[in-house]
Amino acid sequence: MHEIREFRESDWAAVWSLLRATFAAGDTYTFPPDSTEADIRKAWIETPTRTFVVEGASGALLGTYFIKANQPGLGNHVCNCGYVVAPEARGQGIATIACEHSQKVAAELGFRAMQFNFVVATNEGAVRLWQKLGFEVIGRLPGAFRHRRLGFVDALVMFKTLVPADVVYHPPP
Amino acid sequence: MHEIREFRESDWAAVWSLLRATFAAGDTYTFPPDSTEADIRKAWIETPTRTFVVEGASGALLGTYFIKANQPGLGNHVCNCGYVVAPEARGQGIATIACEHSQKVAAELGFRAMQFNFVVATNEGAVRLWQKLGFEVIGRLPGAFRHRRLGFVDALVMFKTLVPADVVYHPPP
Repeated sequence: MHEIREFRESDWAAVWSLLRATFAAGDTYTFPPDSTEADIRKAWIETPTRTFVVEGASGALLGTYFIKANQPGLGNHVCNCGYVVAPEARGQGIATIACEHSQKVAAELGFRAMQFNFVVATNEGAVRLWQKLGFEVIGRLPGAFRHRRLGFVDALVMFKTLVPADVVYHPPP
Repeated sequence: MHEIREFRESDWAAVWSLLRATFAAGDTYTFPPDSTEADIRKAWIETPTRTFVVEGASGALLGTYFIKANQPGLGNHVCNCGYVVAPEARGQGIATIACEHSQKVAAELGFRAMQFNFVVATNEGAVRLWQKLGFEVIGRLPGAFRHRRLGFVDALVMFKTLVPADVVYHPPP
């Protein structure tokens, strides 16, 4: 059994450990492999609107994601999320449940679409999964990522409309 | 005659006045139309790597642009710029000389490509100009901009490679 719940302060040590290892690999996110704890805390916890964790039955951290507006002001009806799954929890559908959860949270927060700005093209499992979950590749950024092992590789912009454009928009109060 | 030079502290009053009026129109940038001076100063002057102004013969401010990395860490070889031209200086090629200048600055700073994340599709003059200057539309974000008069309109992701991928990369020291 997995539980998804909001991040709590007591989760930070485990979240940071997972994020540090993920970014150190330099194959999926642009965060500098030697990012400081403060920088990553700001990006994953402080800047986002909400941060969630996926917890296993034993209380182990299986994954985490954040959600935030992708642009300020007149573009803040489109959200952006970042997901990380623990290596030992791969193949259990954690990314799927996290992404589906984030789409529900997005709707609750009043977002109308979700955009991924920078999906590394060689991360084929992620690209396929996001496509399966309804995201479309709307653009390819040539050589935009310096993969730690592969050198310059492309990054993809992916997008999913959550609320059709003909549904009336009520800006946040 | 136009001169392009680096922003100086004494330029701020004129730059802020131009930016405030531009963003208040709500037809080209996502900055909230009621953004505070501090927020815009941060976005246009403090966060970017460099900010420039275009000055007319009389010393009048004709335009301004910034340049910065578009992503942190492993994506920081692609830069991003934002340009604003004074309404009274339209049609004089100010955006062209600013964009050409920014591409030279980008090369000097070691950037290998330039990306515009959010060109409002109804801003057709800008789209055409960037295409003329070698930028390609690599993606279209459906309904991603809430145009103040037109409602939801698309935004474009545009990209130009400045240094071919087969040229050896020397990361900043």
